[in-house]
Amino acid sequence: MENIITLDYGSGGKKTSRLIEELLLPALDNPALRQLGDGAVLDGAEKLVFSTDSFVVTPLFFPGGDIGKLAVCGTVNDLAMCGGEAKFLSCSLIIEEGLPYETLERIVASLGRAAAEAGVQVVTGDTKVVERGRGDGVYINTAGIGYLRHPGLGPGAIRPGDRVLLSGTAGDHGTAVMLARSGLMQGELKSDCTALNRLAEAMLSSGAAIRVLRDPTRGGVATTLNEFCEGRTFGIELEEEAIPVRGEVRAACELLGLDPLYCANEGKLLCVCAPEDAEALLAVMRALPEGRDAAVIGEVTERTPGKLTLSTPLGGRRILQKLAGAQLPRIC
Amino acid sequence: MENIITLDYGSGGKKTSRLIEELLLPALDNPALRQLGDGAVLDGAEKLVFSTDSFVVTPLFFPGGDIGKLAVCGTVNDLAMCGGEAKFLSCSLIIEEGLPYETLERIVASLGRAAAEAGVQVVTGDTKVVERGRGDGVYINTAGIGYLRHPGLGPGAIRPGDRVLLSGTAGDHGTAVMLARSGLMQGELKSDCTALNRLAEAMLSSGAAIRVLRDPTRGGVATTLNEFCEGRTFGIELEEEAIPVRGEVRAACELLGLDPLYCANEGKLLCVCAPEDAEALLAVMRALPEGRDAAVIGEVTERTPGKLTLSTPLGGRRILQKLAGAQLPRIC
Repeated sequence: MENIITLDYGSGGKKTSRLIEELLLPALDNPALRQLGDGAVLDGAEKLVFSTDSFVVTPLFFPGGDIGKLAVCGTVNDLAMCGGEAKFLSCSLIIEEGLPYETLERIVASLGRAAAEAGVQVVTGDTKVVERGRGDGVYINTAGIGYLRHPGLGPGAIRPGDRVLLSGTAGDHGTAVMLARSGLMQGELKSDCTALNRLAEAMLSSGAAIRVLRDPTRGGVATTLNEFCEGRTFGIELEEEAIPVRGEVRAACELLGLDPLYCANEGKLLCVCAPEDAEALLAVMRALPEGRDAAVIGEVTERTPGKLTLSTPLGGRRILQKLAGAQLPRIC
Repeated sequence: MENIITLDYGSGGKKTSRLIEELLLPALDNPALRQLGDGAVLDGAEKLVFSTDSFVVTPLFFPGGDIGKLAVCGTVNDLAMCGGEAKFLSCSLIIEEGLPYETLERIVASLGRAAAEAGVQVVTGDTKVVERGRGDGVYINTAGIGYLRHPGLGPGAIRPGDRVLLSGTAGDHGTAVMLARSGLMQGELKSDCTALNRLAEAMLSSGAAIRVLRDPTRGGVATTLNEFCEGRTFGIELEEEAIPVRGEVRAACELLGLDPLYCANEGKLLCVCAPEDAEALLAVMRALPEGRDAAVIGEVTERTPGKLTLSTPLGGRRILQKLAGAQLPRIC
């Protein structure tokens, strides 16, 4: 078989990891990049956080958001998850020839609104146009700079006994986009696309012993939690009943053959914290609209090293693997 | 006529300006963005420079470079032109399904080498994959952060009598890429793709009164100089004989129906400086390989307000307009 890039390489799962570990890290090696996570902490007179994402979602508009709003929220959230106060964004457009000007106007207006709502400024940018059939409407890259306010976050700080919190319902974004794409029923189901910087700041300022924050985008809750325990001496046990999932999301996932735990979220965060702080932290989260449906969904344990497992209401327990292929291509 | 995006909007010329001024600036307005130029200066404990570019060049490999090297040099140069010391890059890939893995390896290796040579670190990144026919091999976005070392540069500082310097031959990159694309003769002609941060630092540290630095990429020397005098009380007069252009570039431009002054450069800078400092600055530039062919190519004058003009050896004088359409689509 020819060694070519397949859609799986963009899934956020195993193939994406392979691309990063075997190709990108060796070629670009430096300590800041080795920190991994979705952003880098940089030494300056003031410590900085720096992150980037390209957005290739299709369709460009979906219930609850559009590619412009997504491009702001995605990067703001990556900065927030690193303990950074998001301040500045760049915005670079790769536009396909033939895109209606009015479509671009709507997208850029939405991007501007999302930036204002998140309290960040788009300070630099770039525009390229490619021929018809060499793009798909518009792709947007944003990079973001934040000031590091809460150093020391990362999966390295996780220890057995810690609790795993999810800030709301799982799988809303991925399911909403897939439904919009399929042309099937819509309307009820909306993407959760939103900026999480205020929620993260409230949590990090609460005094709770937070080990790591991460927004489970591509690959969903199950893939992100796998990354936390992969190769470690502990595992994570989830309680299926404790994980909030909307009824509409559950129904849509059955229809589409998807699992909400592998569906992308764009307005939710996972948090691992010390067990004694979990309840207080949950109260802090629930006090904000972005965290209204927050729940403790599992705990870190030495019983299943390296594995993410799910306990079902009937007493079963199954392993949740890292996403292997492209469950949902071009979801963000 | 339907109001759609055409390739002209990506030319770096008039339509690109329209897109920026009518659509992007109003939607994203803030003081740092209003500075324009190719980067933003940000307030922090230490002042930062921030810039981004997406690279969509075709073909991916061309004599003298490739999209990976270009993606590093382009952003490093934008930071250097702002008076910044380039420090950190992000790198985001939008890969088309079906790209040979080996092609991506070569590109990323080249990108890594270029970063090492320029003295910058790639510290964060992202990877997306789109379906066949929704991209073209790979598009690369880089964003860069630098520390501001030389504040106050910008076209606003230009005054009548100032000299215009070009750091070397005009049009090498655009012509080399177009030739590579056409499948016509190749070999002799190479892109000038290179990092200019050391040249810029040497110039800015020399004590010369430098008003503005800018790398004339898309739209070439003529478009960049038009941006300097557009709407101002002064114009710029160029001496055609003083502008260094390689014989191969001149020949290729005749063959392809191009003008070297509108062809992209990726390893050249334009500098406007005080008249009394021009000769000393030229010596500083010529002492480095990147500035070996530097020349004084014109001066700022009140005779032709708002216009860029070119004096020919036969005594003629013509106006050089800003690039109107897409002379060279997907050149960077």
